[in-house]
Amino acid sequence: MANPSKKINIRKIQRKEGILIEDSVAVEEPLEIRVEGQNIAVVMRTPGHDKELAAGFLLSEGVIKNFKEIFEISECPSQLEGSEETGNYVDIILTKGNEFDVKNLTRHVYTSSSCGICGKATIESAMIEFPKIVKRNNIIFQEILDMPEKLLLAQETFKKTGGLHASALFNENGEIIIIREDVGRHNALDKVIGFALLNDMLPLSNHTLLLSGRISFELMQKSLAAGIPTVAGISAPSSLAVDFANKSNQNLIGFLRNNTMNIYTKD
Amino acid sequence: MANPSKKINIRKIQRKEGILIEDSVAVEEPLEIRVEGQNIAVVMRTPGHDKELAAGFLLSEGVIKNFKEIFEISECPSQLEGSEETGNYVDIILTKGNEFDVKNLTRHVYTSSSCGICGKATIESAMIEFPKIVKRNNIIFQEILDMPEKLLLAQETFKKTGGLHASALFNENGEIIIIREDVGRHNALDKVIGFALLNDMLPLSNHTLLLSGRISFELMQKSLAAGIPTVAGISAPSSLAVDFANKSNQNLIGFLRNNTMNIYTKD
Repeated sequence: MANPSKKINIRKIQRKEGILIEDSVAVEEPLEIRVEGQNIAVVMRTPGHDKELAAGFLLSEGVIKNFKEIFEISECPSQLEGSEETGNYVDIILTKGNEFDVKNLTRHVYTSSSCGICGKATIESAMIEFPKIVKRNNIIFQEILDMPEKLLLAQETFKKTGGLHASALFNENGEIIIIREDVGRHNALDKVIGFALLNDMLPLSNHTLLLSGRISFELMQKSLAAGIPTVAGISAPSSLAVDFANKSNQNLIGFLRNNTMNIYTKD
Repeated sequence: MANPSKKINIRKIQRKEGILIEDSVAVEEPLEIRVEGQNIAVVMRTPGHDKELAAGFLLSEGVIKNFKEIFEISECPSQLEGSEETGNYVDIILTKGNEFDVKNLTRHVYTSSSCGICGKATIESAMIEFPKIVKRNNIIFQEILDMPEKLLLAQETFKKTGGLHASALFNENGEIIIIREDVGRHNALDKVIGFALLNDMLPLSNHTLLLSGRISFELMQKSLAAGIPTVAGISAPSSLAVDFANKSNQNLIGFLRNNTMNIYTKD
């Protein structure tokens, strides 16, 4: 059984002072779902129960209607020698053969262009697409710690529905320059990045991004596309988001709330 | 400017008694992003700042590198006569013409098979794919109100990382029969549905689904695929999730916490 969480060293900032502690992050890894050997989707998931995930995906996407339509599900072991990682492929053979049309899939899927499905390859593939931050920025503790309150004050809609994710961009003086909300956190970030793009502000080399929720690999990738050196979130990052930030030279901050925060990336 | 929230009538349950009140939900609607007239993605988003969303999407997906590559962005008005809804298409003309490859897109996208992009068409399309619940189930207040505590007790991993979404299935006696966690809430639900599928338990006609977070259109669609008549969430549903549940005869409950809940669907 794959471990859904992973231990890493972080710097916990309390009363503006940092202490090194060990903490856990939720594991995020790509899983390729194949039907009859054909790649139909790559989903970013927490390893474990991968056969269920693949089966449920096929049902809820309308590819199959019941379990009799599944002839066999096989989980492939990791291809890295000596690796403790779960294999990141599941192949499903249908009873009726490959009578399905990939185009009918309705689901949000991450179609990866990386060669080889694992976290490492996924990160490397993103690094080819988007340039790394040249040098990791300094984190000014108080400036970051003050951001959640500024976000809350600006988030009028959130108070009305409680149902929106927020994404806010701060300039080098710690002022909000744009805030966008959306039911989808990818969308909220894309709106912020789109605003900056259309105003010819890219790359956002002196800016900090604040996210109202969890920080996934994809949100890190999007922020790197805009050249944002520091990403902070009110909630937790995933393991792959942390690995990504260490590679891209971005600062990754999580659990930014109540005047404390965790720094997940290395100095 | 599109309104990001929408007022609806709900039943608020406090001390096991229901009162009818007006409440707001975050608006969720599909947006089709076109490049050179070609549909490249349908994202489920909150209307507003749609040009930014499309521009940011193209940047963060690696389709464009800077704003000079955009020649024109046009937002299409709603095609429904007299409609107050935002148009749900954005078309982008690139400076260099259509020299991009759709296959390079890495993003989670909702590729809709509905004819016409609007919430109504999206729901109708799902209803063709998955049968409605025949008759809306009765909601037993206390049974639902007790569920969050049962979920928390079972959610050991959550306590460790704070970074996982949970999806839990309760039987007709209010007992958890399966709980799955994942960095992605779609995955957590797919794992639950996959478990039920592989154990030949479908349709889940007497079950209740509990979700740890927000309830989107897609989570409702997935639960309908498994025949789940009642979906409850700790947080808020989107407008499209509520519309979907009213059409599919599912019960939709939100803000299930501290011994209170909101019932969003009609009796």
